[in-house]
Amino acid sequence: MKVKGVNLGNWLVLEKWMSPSLFEGTTAEDEYYLPTQLSREVYEARIKIHRSEYITERDFTRIKSMGMDAVRIPVPYFIFGDREPFIGCIEELDKAFCWAEKYGLQILIDLHTAPDSQNGFDNGGISGVCKWSQQPDEVEFELTVLERLAERYGKREGLWGIEVLNEPVLEDMWESMKVTERYPAADPEKAKGTKPNTMEFVRDFYLRAYDRIRKHMPKEKYVVIHDAFKLKAWKDFMQEEKYKNVVLDTHQYLMMAELQGCPQTVEGYVNYIEENFEKDIQEMSQYFPVICGEWCLFNSLAVGRDTKGGQTVLNGQEGVSEESLTPEQKREIYQALAKAQLKAWDAGSGYFYWSYKLLTDTVNTPGWVGWDSWDLGRCVDFGWFPTER
Amino acid sequence: MKVKGVNLGNWLVLEKWMSPSLFEGTTAEDEYYLPTQLSREVYEARIKIHRSEYITERDFTRIKSMGMDAVRIPVPYFIFGDREPFIGCIEELDKAFCWAEKYGLQILIDLHTAPDSQNGFDNGGISGVCKWSQQPDEVEFELTVLERLAERYGKREGLWGIEVLNEPVLEDMWESMKVTERYPAADPEKAKGTKPNTMEFVRDFYLRAYDRIRKHMPKEKYVVIHDAFKLKAWKDFMQEEKYKNVVLDTHQYLMMAELQGCPQTVEGYVNYIEENFEKDIQEMSQYFPVICGEWCLFNSLAVGRDTKGGQTVLNGQEGVSEESLTPEQKREIYQALAKAQLKAWDAGSGYFYWSYKLLTDTVNTPGWVGWDSWDLGRCVDFGWFPTER
Repeated sequence: MKVKGVNLGNWLVLEKWMSPSLFEGTTAEDEYYLPTQLSREVYEARIKIHRSEYITERDFTRIKSMGMDAVRIPVPYFIFGDREPFIGCIEELDKAFCWAEKYGLQILIDLHTAPDSQNGFDNGGISGVCKWSQQPDEVEFELTVLERLAERYGKREGLWGIEVLNEPVLEDMWESMKVTERYPAADPEKAKGTKPNTMEFVRDFYLRAYDRIRKHMPKEKYVVIHDAFKLKAWKDFMQEEKYKNVVLDTHQYLMMAELQGCPQTVEGYVNYIEENFEKDIQEMSQYFPVICGEWCLFNSLAVGRDTKGGQTVLNGQEGVSEESLTPEQKREIYQALAKAQLKAWDAGSGYFYWSYKLLTDTVNTPGWVGWDSWDLGRCVDFGWFPTER
Repeated sequence: MKVKGVNLGNWLVLEKWMSPSLFEGTTAEDEYYLPTQLSREVYEARIKIHRSEYITERDFTRIKSMGMDAVRIPVPYFIFGDREPFIGCIEELDKAFCWAEKYGLQILIDLHTAPDSQNGFDNGGISGVCKWSQQPDEVEFELTVLERLAERYGKREGLWGIEVLNEPVLEDMWESMKVTERYPAADPEKAKGTKPNTMEFVRDFYLRAYDRIRKHMPKEKYVVIHDAFKLKAWKDFMQEEKYKNVVLDTHQYLMMAELQGCPQTVEGYVNYIEENFEKDIQEMSQYFPVICGEWCLFNSLAVGRDTKGGQTVLNGQEGVSEESLTPEQKREIYQALAKAQLKAWDAGSGYFYWSYKLLTDTVNTPGWVGWDSWDLGRCVDFGWFPTER
C-alpha cells in the first residue's frame, strides 16, 4: 500500500493562522473561545459560510488533478452537533464523501480534537489545556464519536480509513515543544491540572478505539494510530493477528528537525531527512505500514529567518515581511526538499501533505513571508511540488 | 495587444447560483434583497467571510500558473461603502492589486452594477428592475464611482484598464432574452417604469465616463466599453484621435447562440463560432481592439438537455441530475469548443473566461450536472481547457 494524499486542514477544525478573518474582532486564539466572543448568530454565520466556501467540489477535482489518491480530513469531536455551543459538521463530511466518490479519491477521517484536548495545541481546539485523558466520561464520549463515524461511513467506497486520534502528546514532546509557553491558556483556571498523556493511556485508548470501530468497518479499511511523537515506541504494539490493517501515522516537520539541531541549509535538511525521517520509517515499516500523515516544505532557510520551530507573529515571534530570496532560489530549495521528503515517505506507505489550502496572506499581512509553503495549492502553482500531469 | 484572462465573478458582486449558501434561509434572488432578509450583523458576517475566503492570494498564484495575464474583477456601485445597507469592498480590491502586482497579473476593473440596474439581470444586482438610466442623479453617482476608481488605481502597475459599465441592455436583447420573465421583479412596485436603455443614452454615458476617468489614468491603460449586445453597432463611435486605447468588449455565450438557432452539436457550435463570433470580431477589430470579456465552455449538448438559453432550476427549468455522457465524451466536446472559441477570440484582442470559480455543487445538489464548465478551475482540472504549462 502506498498513498499519496493531502490534508484538508482548517476546514472542519479551525486554525486561526490559516483563516484569520474568521477570528476578526475577537481575541480568541482557538476554536474553543471563538463562540464565547461572538453572538450565536454571527458565530453560526461565519462558520457556515466558511465551511461552504473553504472546501467545495472544485477542490476535489483540483486535488485529483494534482495526482493525489486521498484526502485526510480533520474533524472535531463535536462533528455530530451534540456539544453546545459548537456547530456540527456531519453534513459537510457527507458531501465530501460524495465528491470523493465521484472523482476517484478516498477519505481518511482524522479525529483531530477531544473535549479539553489531547495536546493543548491551538489546533487541538483549546490552547494550553490538556486534560481530556483524565476524564473517563470524555474518553468514552470520544469513543462514541469514532463509533458513530465508523457506522456512518465504514462501508463507503470513499472511505480509506479512520484515524482514531490526532497527536496525543506524551511527556517528551510536551517538554521539547514547551507547550504551555507556546500555547498559553486563555483561562488558567480551566487549564488547572493540565499535563501530558501517559503512554499507557494512549495505548489503551487505541486498543479500545480499534475494537469499537472495526466492528462497523470491513477489514480492508485502515485503522490509523498516531505515533504520539515517538515513532519507534510501537514495535511491541498491536502486532497480534487480530489487528488488521493498522497503519502507524507519524508527523514529520522540518521546523521540528530544526529544533533538534538540524542545520538550516539544503544539505543539512536533506541529510536529516535521510538519516532520521527515512531510516526511522524504514525501520518501523517492519511492524506497520507507516504513513507520514503531516509534513510540508516549510523551513527557516526559505523563510529567511530562524522561525524557532515554526513560530509566527501570532506566537509573538518576529516574522519576515520582505522576500530575501529570489523566486528561483526558493524554487531550488523547495524542489530539493520535496524530492528528499517524498523519497523518505516512499520508504514507508506514503503521505498526506499538510495542508491543501490556507488563506494566510503573505502579501498584505506583515510577517508571513515564507508561510505559503504550507499550502500545497501554492506549492504546485509555483512548481515547488512535483505533479504527474 | 492580446490579453488572456479570467473573471473573478461572484466575489464582490454576488450571483446566487454561484454561491447558494450565502442566500440560505432567505427567498432573495439577488444581492439587493439579501440584506432585507437578514439581520445587519448576519448579513455582514456572511459577506465578510465570503469575501475573505472566496478569492485570496492563492487564487492569483493559481491563475498565473494557468498561463493567464489578467483578471477582470466585477465590482458593485457600492464599492466605496457609501450606499447603505450594502457593505463596501474597496479594501478587497486594494488587496487584489497587491496580489496581482506580486504575481505578475493585471486587473481590469469592471463596474458591474448600477443603482436600480442597467439590465435587470440577477447579476445586475436587482432582478427585473432596469431604471438606472432614467435617473440623472444615479447616472452621475455611477460616474463618480468610476472617477474614484480611476483616481485610486489609475497609475498602478497592476491596472490593465477600467470597464465603465457591464452589459447595459438595449431593446433587442431585452426582448430576445425576455428579461422580465426570466428575472421577475420581487417587488412589482419597485420595478414600475422598467425598460431597456436607449442606444443614445449608452453612447452618451460612455463618452462622459471616458472623460471622467481618462484624466486620472495614463493613456496606456485601457478604457473598456461593453457592446450592449450589439457588436456591430459601434463603427462610428469614439473613432476620433482624442480617444486613446478604447477597447470594445463583447460577451459571447454558446447558450445565447442556441437561442439564435445554433444546432446543439459540436459541428453546429464550431460553425456558429466561426461564422458569427470570429467573423464579427474580425470585422469590428478594424475599429477597436475587441475582447471577449465573458464566455465559457458551457453548452446544452454537454449538459445532456436543452437548457433554453442557460436557464437553471433557479429559473424553474428542469435540470439534469445524472450524467448522460461519459467523462471522455465531455472532454471531447469541451476541448473542441475551447479550441474553436480561443481561435475566435484570437481574431480579436483576447478574452476573459467567465468565470474563475463557482461553488455550485453538481454532485450534492440536484439539477446542476454540466454547470461545472462555467468554472475555469474545474475546466483546467478536467483537461477541458488548455494550459501552457
